[in-house]
Amino acid sequence: MAFGWIDQQVRVRTRRGLVRTLRPRPADSPLLDLASNDYLGLTRHPEVVEGAARAARTWGGGSTGSRLVTGTTELHAQLERELADFCGFEAALVFSSGYAANLAAVTALAPLRSLVVSDVGNHASLIDGCRLARGTSQVVEHADPDAVRKALQTHEGPGPAVFVSDTVFSVDGDAAPLAAHAEACREYGAGLVLDDAHGLGVLGDGGRGAPHAAGLAGADDVVVTVTLSKSLGSQGGAVLGPARVIDHLVNTARTFIFDTGLAPAAAGAALSALRLLRREPERAARAREVAAELHARLTAAGHEAVRPDAAVVSVRAPSPEGAVQWAADCRAAGLSVGCFRPPSVPDGISRLRLTARADLSEAQIERAVRVIGETRP
Amino acid sequence: MAFGWIDQQVRVRTRRGLVRTLRPRPADSPLLDLASNDYLGLTRHPEVVEGAARAARTWGGGSTGSRLVTGTTELHAQLERELADFCGFEAALVFSSGYAANLAAVTALAPLRSLVVSDVGNHASLIDGCRLARGTSQVVEHADPDAVRKALQTHEGPGPAVFVSDTVFSVDGDAAPLAAHAEACREYGAGLVLDDAHGLGVLGDGGRGAPHAAGLAGADDVVVTVTLSKSLGSQGGAVLGPARVIDHLVNTARTFIFDTGLAPAAAGAALSALRLLRREPERAARAREVAAELHARLTAAGHEAVRPDAAVVSVRAPSPEGAVQWAADCRAAGLSVGCFRPPSVPDGISRLRLTARADLSEAQIERAVRVIGETRP
Ligand SMILES: Cc1ncc(COP(=O)(O)O)c(C=O)c1O
Ligand SMILES: Cc1ncc(COP(=O)(O)O)c(C=O)c1O
Repeated sequence: MAFGWIDQQVRVRTRRGLVRTLRPRPADSPLLDLASNDYLGLTRHPEVVEGAARAARTWGGGSTGSRLVTGTTELHAQLERELADFCGFEAALVFSSGYAANLAAVTALAPLRSLVVSDVGNHASLIDGCRLARGTSQVVEHADPDAVRKALQTHEGPGPAVFVSDTVFSVDGDAAPLAAHAEACREYGAGLVLDDAHGLGVLGDGGRGAPHAAGLAGADDVVVTVTLSKSLGSQGGAVLGPARVIDHLVNTARTFIFDTGLAPAAAGAALSALRLLRREPERAARAREVAAELHARLTAAGHEAVRPDAAVVSVRAPSPEGAVQWAADCRAAGLSVGCFRPPSVPDGISRLRLTARADLSEAQIERAVRVIGETRP
Repeated sequence: MAFGWIDQQVRVRTRRGLVRTLRPRPADSPLLDLASNDYLGLTRHPEVVEGAARAARTWGGGSTGSRLVTGTTELHAQLERELADFCGFEAALVFSSGYAANLAAVTALAPLRSLVVSDVGNHASLIDGCRLARGTSQVVEHADPDAVRKALQTHEGPGPAVFVSDTVFSVDGDAAPLAAHAEACREYGAGLVLDDAHGLGVLGDGGRGAPHAAGLAGADDVVVTVTLSKSLGSQGGAVLGPARVIDHLVNTARTFIFDTGLAPAAAGAALSALRLLRREPERAARAREVAAELHARLTAAGHEAVRPDAAVVSVRAPSPEGAVQWAADCRAAGLSVGCFRPPSVPDGISRLRLTARADLSEAQIERAVRVIGETRP
């Protein structure tokens, strides 16, 4: 049987306790959510929901084609203008997902004979971008500007070089040393591609993101990718950068040219969320505060937690099985937390992953910390 | 300057007349649309729009996380059940785009030491899937089961083999010889992965798709990918197949595990469209009729058009510049048509690409044919 070989892999996964299953949630889940990436608590905000509904009514359920054919609406253009303006870049291009935006940015900026240097902790979509790119890729130590220098030094050309990194790493929630990375890249005339999926809405002035906070917004050698699916409570992704890079993506990026444009409802929801964030910039600081408080309380209770640079708080678990059990016990006690374990963690360390939402109350934070303590394996 | 190398490429593109630009459309475009992939004319159907709006209101603007964490809702599960049931497969898995679904299907089914055979006319997302897959890939002649046989014959194992093909090719609208392909694959125990992006909603009994029409639905060696962004008027994609394959994707597909789940509004719109199609199965036949009529009238008027196997009608243009001019003149006369030219066409032939929508009236078809004739270069 053609796909019979799969059963062998199932046996291995089952033996190792690594089988993943889907658990559909109801609309009115009673769980306290510290697992989603809805950092600003906007996905159910009436304005965001209405932004989605209004866009669907005005533009239809889908964008109907590639953005180069019928898939670009004035709504997409508006979202691009406001995103670029908010984050401080010349131009922006919206994609159907953050994953697609990352594939586009990396492949378009790492052509044949180029070098793409990639942080070992980067998100899967950046890694896949490196693998799809025609350039040579080189993986370097985590958050290490000197390692970036060393890699760039090996590049003999004639193609360009680029360094690619998450700004906030999704597993541990630690931030990349952006200013030092930029310095390293500039010594070698290399471009810098930053994935700000977990920075937008949380870091920088009013949530303008980690590159903005590091003084890199609008630089002619910096390109930023963001997702609309986390702080902006929607779906989709975008690339922000110099107009020359954005035009280049329009002309060459396969996940742009050969993909249907983002659905109007998703563009509408993201645009509403962006406007809300502009009006209520304190939401970004509040997400960081909640994270700091979660971390402080967890360490005070004896947990080994990484000091959060953004809104992700990572708590070390004793083992893969321990992590799974811990997360399950939290859930049984009414708390939803993320659980990362091999092979999704590059370093082999299993952890609970908590996300600090700006709309968590003191009582909810307290309850979360209590449940985590009581269920500790 | 890090990205200065791009300017050189701009000059080349400009000289060749190959610069692509975005043209945002207004919500009330007066153009007659024969360019979108909204084959059944459902994207603005009140039920589809309400499906999107209702889902956003019930579930929020985004799904908030990976489907393995918080991103799976009962709505996603319902859509998966109804899609699998409609198309005749055991199980289904929904992705954020058809592009992501294709990357997932190909990479998950072409592991290390496997062979993946790919039709030369395949969509970019399948090609990227082959490039990302750990297996060896081999490109074969277009729509040629004997070429598939020859390629499969070269595979010595020990890994599995799979053949990957569009069911309806997006450029020319021609259909793949599915039954003959299946026969070839079965001789070698190879799996068959079919991208039914342009078949779902148009081909097969009531729009159940090309694999259903070919008697391949539900077979244990067949996997089908679809998009929710064409006939279903929304955004997203899905993989349909044996439960063992779907479980395998949940556990291994990177564009599933590391991507935010499809936005509720998109899932809701697609589900409403699917139910509408079930209730009004004649829409599928009507799309095919419109295509046949377009083709008949165009050939009668002396155009060189490919006989449509589904709802795409391809009309040959004299040159890349001629195609661009033709499409622009159509647009100036109120008709929106697609324009394919190098490098988006594998064979170097430029063409207009017309899509037959089920909701086109006789008068609209007549007008389209008249405008195309009057603007012919
Ligand atoms: C760092 C990072 N980049 C990119 C993505 C992909 O974005 P999206 O889920 O919107 O496709 C994610 C998460 O999903 C992420 O964590
Ligand atoms: C044959 C084919 N497969 C896959 C896709 C990708 O689907 P989506 O646009 O929904 O990502 C497309 C078109 O966009 C297509 O034409």
